[in-house]
Amino acid sequence: MSKVKLGAVSTRAPENFDKKETKARLEEILNELDDLQNLLYAENKHSVLVVLQGMDASGKDGTIRSVFGRLNPQGVMVKSFKAPTAEESAHDFLWRVHLHTPAKGMIQIFNRSHYEDILVTRVHKWCDDELAYKRMKSINDFEELLQEQNNTHILKFYLHVSREEQHERLKERTKNPAKMWKYNDQDFKEARLWNDYRKAYEDCFEHCNKIPWTIVPADQNWYKEYVIAKQLYDLLKSLDMHYPGLKK
Amino acid sequence: MSKVKLGAVSTRAPENFDKKETKARLEEILNELDDLQNLLYAENKHSVLVVLQGMDASGKDGTIRSVFGRLNPQGVMVKSFKAPTAEESAHDFLWRVHLHTPAKGMIQIFNRSHYEDILVTRVHKWCDDELAYKRMKSINDFEELLQEQNNTHILKFYLHVSREEQHERLKERTKNPAKMWKYNDQDFKEARLWNDYRKAYEDCFEHCNKIPWTIVPADQNWYKEYVIAKQLYDLLKSLDMHYPGLKK
Repeated sequence: MSKVKLGAVSTRAPENFDKKETKARLEEILNELDDLQNLLYAENKHSVLVVLQGMDASGKDGTIRSVFGRLNPQGVMVKSFKAPTAEESAHDFLWRVHLHTPAKGMIQIFNRSHYEDILVTRVHKWCDDELAYKRMKSINDFEELLQEQNNTHILKFYLHVSREEQHERLKERTKNPAKMWKYNDQDFKEARLWNDYRKAYEDCFEHCNKIPWTIVPADQNWYKEYVIAKQLYDLLKSLDMHYPGLKK
Repeated sequence: MSKVKLGAVSTRAPENFDKKETKARLEEILNELDDLQNLLYAENKHSVLVVLQGMDASGKDGTIRSVFGRLNPQGVMVKSFKAPTAEESAHDFLWRVHLHTPAKGMIQIFNRSHYEDILVTRVHKWCDDELAYKRMKSINDFEELLQEQNNTHILKFYLHVSREEQHERLKERTKNPAKMWKYNDQDFKEARLWNDYRKAYEDCFEHCNKIPWTIVPADQNWYKEYVIAKQLYDLLKSLDMHYPGLKK
């Protein structure tokens, strides 16, 4: 991918998308995904890894609930990557990630991922440029291994919110008692590093795009959910899957 | 629990349960469970372990899809226990199970469980009576540890189908191309061991009932789903959970 300028990409749905129609289409897709997931599980040949990245309050948790919450939980696993534990830090940065790559038949969601090791770490200077470029190479090799040698199809989504929308959502967390638990008093401090995060993301899109990123306009949940569900649907449709017959 | 005779327990819904009304009530419960689960996750004090046991084709997979498939996958994990791997067999029987007990805030589903080590193993004489009773004591101690020392609330369900219903479902698997992948040519052979399985289950209910079992009439999916969802609902309602405020 040539250099993306996130500032030039809209955070809202294109003009020609009608909210009501898109929501209806999303419902259809989610219903069809139910069958496609069953087939993925039954055939047991392919797997899917969904990487969700985005600034704080960009809607990662909501996506998991609204889109992937409609699938059979026996075939979906969610792993949220937080600050590494002492044991995790004692290994290379891909160690804890590799443990959670999907087995055949499964859909694995990463809520944040190995990409944090070239994002938050870079913004805070825990990882210098030299190490960052080494890690990008390792990430590309790792993703290629999964995709080429285990039929793990990787969908990478960047949830693209505007700074104004993020601010609104963080403020909401300080006021709504049902959302306060999501608020961390570092959140507004991190939000001030907006431009540094953008730069780190742009660099990541440029150098880790062998398996391409989708930049998802995410200010409106209905459009975000549609884009993500549609990509998963298109991927599963493209796999030419069949129910296996009786075991020999 | 005094000795249960499974033959004396109906596999069908009680007369006073109307299918249409029960399905409507189930819908309501599932909608309320969505909020309760969010609260469980947010409060981060309790966890739930759901143990699903039952003969082949008693509807364990279907339960996971229909009941737990309605929850937020970020807060639900499903672990299916199959024949142990070489590594698992090199440890005590609770080792692989302990790895998957739920963290606070989570709902963990066991599709089969540590109970197989006193069921299939006993039927096939891989585990003699002496070892079986030792294991039952270990199971009781283990479940007590989880419940008393980590607020892990355990719901244990035996999906109770009739022999006729099981036979129908297994036959369907040999005929319906979308279900053939679930069929194993040992299934009818195992089904002939019906009485041995029943005996092993009855012994398990008698000796591992400190945390009680629910015997779920499971010939009709709508009733089975209702009973399980209702128990989870009643449990979560009983916990007196609250959204935590802002972190101090």
